[in-house]
Amino acid sequence: MSVAIWSRREATSRAALEFVRQCLPLLEAEGLLGGRSAAELSDLVEVCSSLESAVKGASYVQENYPEDMETKRAIYATLDAACAPETIIASSASALPASAFTEALAGRGRCIVAHPVNPPYLIPATEVVPAPWTTQESVKKTCEILSDAGQVPVVMSREIDGFVVNRLQGALLNEAFRLVGEGYVGIEDIDVAIKNGLALRWSFMGPFETIDLNAPGGVRDYVSRYDGLYNNLLSQMQGKSQWLGDVLDRIEASRRAQLPLDAHVERQAWRDRRLMALAAHKMEDDERIGR
Amino acid sequence: MSVAIWSRREATSRAALEFVRQCLPLLEAEGLLGGRSAAELSDLVEVCSSLESAVKGASYVQENYPEDMETKRAIYATLDAACAPETIIASSASALPASAFTEALAGRGRCIVAHPVNPPYLIPATEVVPAPWTTQESVKKTCEILSDAGQVPVVMSREIDGFVVNRLQGALLNEAFRLVGEGYVGIEDIDVAIKNGLALRWSFMGPFETIDLNAPGGVRDYVSRYDGLYNNLLSQMQGKSQWLGDVLDRIEASRRAQLPLDAHVERQAWRDRRLMALAAHKMEDDERIGR
Repeated sequence: MSVAIWSRREATSRAALEFVRQCLPLLEAEGLLGGRSAAELSDLVEVCSSLESAVKGASYVQENYPEDMETKRAIYATLDAACAPETIIASSASALPASAFTEALAGRGRCIVAHPVNPPYLIPATEVVPAPWTTQESVKKTCEILSDAGQVPVVMSREIDGFVVNRLQGALLNEAFRLVGEGYVGIEDIDVAIKNGLALRWSFMGPFETIDLNAPGGVRDYVSRYDGLYNNLLSQMQGKSQWLGDVLDRIEASRRAQLPLDAHVERQAWRDRRLMALAAHKMEDDERIGR
Repeated sequence: MSVAIWSRREATSRAALEFVRQCLPLLEAEGLLGGRSAAELSDLVEVCSSLESAVKGASYVQENYPEDMETKRAIYATLDAACAPETIIASSASALPASAFTEALAGRGRCIVAHPVNPPYLIPATEVVPAPWTTQESVKKTCEILSDAGQVPVVMSREIDGFVVNRLQGALLNEAFRLVGEGYVGIEDIDVAIKNGLALRWSFMGPFETIDLNAPGGVRDYVSRYDGLYNNLLSQMQGKSQWLGDVLDRIEASRRAQLPLDAHVERQAWRDRRLMALAAHKMEDDERIGR
């Protein structure tokens, strides 16, 4: 297995390669390379000078162009012409479905969305979203390739705007903006309620296993106990809350007080170090305590 | 500092004490007792035979009666009469606000909700929700006592049904039930999207810091890039989705296939071991990588 990087601007490709080379030793130190060495893996990644040479012989292409329909249509036409018929062409689109930019292509059956979560090399969940014409064989092959690369596919049966991740995130954010905007709670308190609260259980169980364990009789018991409560809450939670104006000014001010913009890149590196350590920790716990 | 347990049924108090005694050595082994020993702390917990003796000299009472308005009113009347005027009387109510059961009390100024997240001894976030007549002094004292006990208060400025935690959880669950109910994605895929996706970042940053780091210009840049996307998604996400009937049957069947009900208690113990290990891991990362 080897990885070819191609971008319209060669400087972008070089920066990507540099990023990979910086990350690999950190991943090795956390025991996250499955026993292989940073040096060995680094040698498998190369920058190509043309799209055609990058996709030559590829079993899988991950397309990362800007999320604009015409831009996607153009690059997909180029990729479909350049790739061998058996190559999967997966898009990193986070909300645009593959049906929006692959309908007219001869090879549309091997086109699919494989939406990673940022930062992709540390967040395993990857949304696999077939267009109506994507073949089942392509879905299967995409999942196999992602799994081999250490990702965990979340396979959708059909397309919906925002897929799963951004819909779940949007639902939670919408209520967070509402509670902050209407002055019930502070901005940092929302982060505390999640990072010292809900996300601890969610980080190794997910929401359904969490509620299943939160009532003596399991999930059916949980819903029968709390459906009335949630009916009441959800009746108050309708509509998009205000994300702009005063509430955004306050959130921006709070975040900048904690993190000046010139420390942003450094903080992203901190986030990635924490995610690496968390990945190593979860692997160890899976072994020691069980999954 | 010592802790007195009292319950209407002495067997319940004994079971609570037994639970504490079982947990302490596990917490000690994970380095979560702040350098104190399980034996030393175990000696500070006692069962009392009457409510009056349990609250005598207490600076803080945590009330855990069933969440029913009349039940809460009755126990609060008893507690308000039995406690010294300076004792804080905090309720574990998860959705009922303190104003629903403390209005008529002479000591209503020291009554408050302090809603812990299950399991309370491993989830630090605790919602502190004052009634309109709760004094600021009582809010402050509640936060100090919770912080001393290793909890992290999430302080609300005023009451709202479901507080913060259950509103954020309800928003996310509602969309999860919708996506499963309408057949877009499998039940386990929802858990994967969270436990291998969104909750990894949330578990040490929370949702606002997450989006702040997800756009080069911070949270304002993030919202200006994605507000249109979320407007579209949220317009499709209105109303309570179906939580009962076929979707609940399928979720129950999926959960029971993974975990028979007779293994439920054992799995809760597994969850708690994972939460202990995660707490120890986060403490270590705060030190090693920074918070």
